[in-house]
Amino acid sequence: MIQTMARDAKASARLLRVAKRGEKDTALGLMADNILSRKEEIIETNTKDISLAGKKGLSPAMIDRLTLNEKTITSMAAGLREVAALPDPVGEVTGMWKRPNGLRVGRVRIPLGVIGFIYESRPNVTVDAAALCLKSGNAVLLKGGSEAINSNLILNEILTEAMKKANLPEKSIQVIPSTEHEAVGILLGMDDYLDMIIPRGGEGLISFVVENSRIPVLKHFKGVCHVYVDESADLEMAQGICFNAKVQRPGVCNAMETMLVHRKIAPSFLPGMIEAFKKAGVEIRACEESVRLVPGLKLAKDDDWPAEFLDLILAVKVVKNMDEALNHIERYGSNHTEAIVTNDYERSQVFLERVDASVVLANASTRFNDGFELGLGAEIGISTSKLHAYGPMSLKELTTTKFIVFGSGQVRT
Amino acid sequence: MIQTMARDAKASARLLRVAKRGEKDTALGLMADNILSRKEEIIETNTKDISLAGKKGLSPAMIDRLTLNEKTITSMAAGLREVAALPDPVGEVTGMWKRPNGLRVGRVRIPLGVIGFIYESRPNVTVDAAALCLKSGNAVLLKGGSEAINSNLILNEILTEAMKKANLPEKSIQVIPSTEHEAVGILLGMDDYLDMIIPRGGEGLISFVVENSRIPVLKHFKGVCHVYVDESADLEMAQGICFNAKVQRPGVCNAMETMLVHRKIAPSFLPGMIEAFKKAGVEIRACEESVRLVPGLKLAKDDDWPAEFLDLILAVKVVKNMDEALNHIERYGSNHTEAIVTNDYERSQVFLERVDASVVLANASTRFNDGFELGLGAEIGISTSKLHAYGPMSLKELTTTKFIVFGSGQVRT
Repeated sequence: MIQTMARDAKASARLLRVAKRGEKDTALGLMADNILSRKEEIIETNTKDISLAGKKGLSPAMIDRLTLNEKTITSMAAGLREVAALPDPVGEVTGMWKRPNGLRVGRVRIPLGVIGFIYESRPNVTVDAAALCLKSGNAVLLKGGSEAINSNLILNEILTEAMKKANLPEKSIQVIPSTEHEAVGILLGMDDYLDMIIPRGGEGLISFVVENSRIPVLKHFKGVCHVYVDESADLEMAQGICFNAKVQRPGVCNAMETMLVHRKIAPSFLPGMIEAFKKAGVEIRACEESVRLVPGLKLAKDDDWPAEFLDLILAVKVVKNMDEALNHIERYGSNHTEAIVTNDYERSQVFLERVDASVVLANASTRFNDGFELGLGAEIGISTSKLHAYGPMSLKELTTTKFIVFGSGQVRT
Repeated sequence: MIQTMARDAKASARLLRVAKRGEKDTALGLMADNILSRKEEIIETNTKDISLAGKKGLSPAMIDRLTLNEKTITSMAAGLREVAALPDPVGEVTGMWKRPNGLRVGRVRIPLGVIGFIYESRPNVTVDAAALCLKSGNAVLLKGGSEAINSNLILNEILTEAMKKANLPEKSIQVIPSTEHEAVGILLGMDDYLDMIIPRGGEGLISFVVENSRIPVLKHFKGVCHVYVDESADLEMAQGICFNAKVQRPGVCNAMETMLVHRKIAPSFLPGMIEAFKKAGVEIRACEESVRLVPGLKLAKDDDWPAEFLDLILAVKVVKNMDEALNHIERYGSNHTEAIVTNDYERSQVFLERVDASVVLANASTRFNDGFELGLGAEIGISTSKLHAYGPMSLKELTTTKFIVFGSGQVRT
């Protein structure tokens, strides 16, 4: 069954890659209309998934992620219209030049083809992923979490209906109707039909996909993000940035997990900063020098430095200079997001150049590593591996370029 | 041992990624000097490999590929100087913009990190690959064919000597001194250290790498390339292009394997074209309609259409219109190189848009799918998969981009 779906997806992709922007945007608009007009039906179907999840004893957090209501449905429809409003990446000529023999050579942005999207519980990801794949001219096979199967299938039906009305190939968007984990393994072997796999979920899912896929994978591993407060930092600015990076939404991958503070300003910076964190309920795990400066702090253990807490927990370390900070980040960072707070011009430049992370910031919160916030218009994930995309992935990252050549009879000698 | 080498490579990559263009170009120049001044020693060592290969009964073609002489050594040194003359891809800002909140966001080109290069007999690939990886700021682990091991090791010594003299990390370039096939498998599991694998060789090697790698692979599969001669083609131009595409160098991936001819011009085009091919020793395998037009031709079998002959053999098919040509290419093409010969403006545009291949040409030979010929300055392979690179790969394809953000205290709300 999955093979038939993959073959249908590839056939659809062939038509979709030459679809006009107007056709794709019309379909996205119709999807938004359909979702709103069939709201009650969606909520009713979602209720089945929720009650099954309850019986299976899923955690309240998981059930929360699974739930669709008036608000999440309105937001899905709005998301579809936002994607329709974004420019079409397909057809962009990224460069063109003339060769000495008169050949004109250009590179043109084209869709990848067929994308396999493997994700966990949120059914709204079904709609987001379908919208971004359609806009970028790609067919998509969606394998969501088994607990969301009924919700995903009704959303698939609604999206497909809109594709038909817009005269676009309906098999461009297909939810795999299986709740078996086995289906993922089968999908990962379909390298004759699929061009890319995007897994979204916990480390277990991503490792499984990387180990078992014959298809290239765009992966999003963990975020162990640091803010380095330099001796020349504006302390008020540093406090604002560090507080935001840790507290605004601690459960996400671009939240700060370790704060590095230059020895010279630690005595003036740490006590106030730590008080602010404590008021916000942040648990501090500190190095020995920090504990001397702010007595009563809990001492950090070795495994706190590489930890992605995803919670109101923060590791704090005093460093003797920027080199020590850079070495710490090189050793424990996860190539995700790293920031410096400084007023020293040269150090800002050195930090931005030397740190190997998908997003490196000077004087701004790590929380800005996000497709919308950086101005890409949408986001389908954040890549922490370097091939094809590094950092937030948006429409362009769902495309590639081919070469086109205009000749007048040239042959090679 | 391979793990230690991979760890050393990663440590070297960290230094190499901030190396200045001048340092890298100095090293490349010193490598060229060293290769020329130690010419006799290289040839002597290479003789060992050749005599072992003779004893193992390797084919003359393989021994030819293995052989280093005055001419190939001069050409390796010239290649190093050419790479030195190319612009440094590292540090290029590919875009920069300002967000409404005042953040300045840019994308900067950076090296990938550590590249694993797996190839077969030619020892000159050792030097080419090392040069391109160094120029793009990447460390490289080289696993060449076992029959070239002595040649590869002395070249490695010569390159490393130049790195030392130029004060660059010598472990940036390492030939794996093992002749065991097992070493490839071990290398493919080093995903903690390596960022990309590039296999160069036959389909067997590439399939093995794709199946066994945990590291992203940039692969170069076969080239089943077509030229479609449209009814509106200038027949003289068509004959020149088709002849060049098939005969100039039949053993390479961008040579034409199947010629598609529009029914309307087949009677005036085919007889002369086929005569020219026959004079050049090309064996024709033709469709029934071609056989009716040019009696005595050998009839093509089903397995000739998807074949990569890599030889003076050509499949020929008459098609009733461009759609039939497009469908044939979609079915049997390998996403490598496809060309149309036409004087019809609209058809040229439709062909360039609709054909899914890394290089699509109008009125030029398929043989132009090559990094040098298309103006990229150098080539490390041709990617026929779409992620990261599609088509000839050069220095830019050995890099990625990271985001840099200049703020003034912004936090996310």
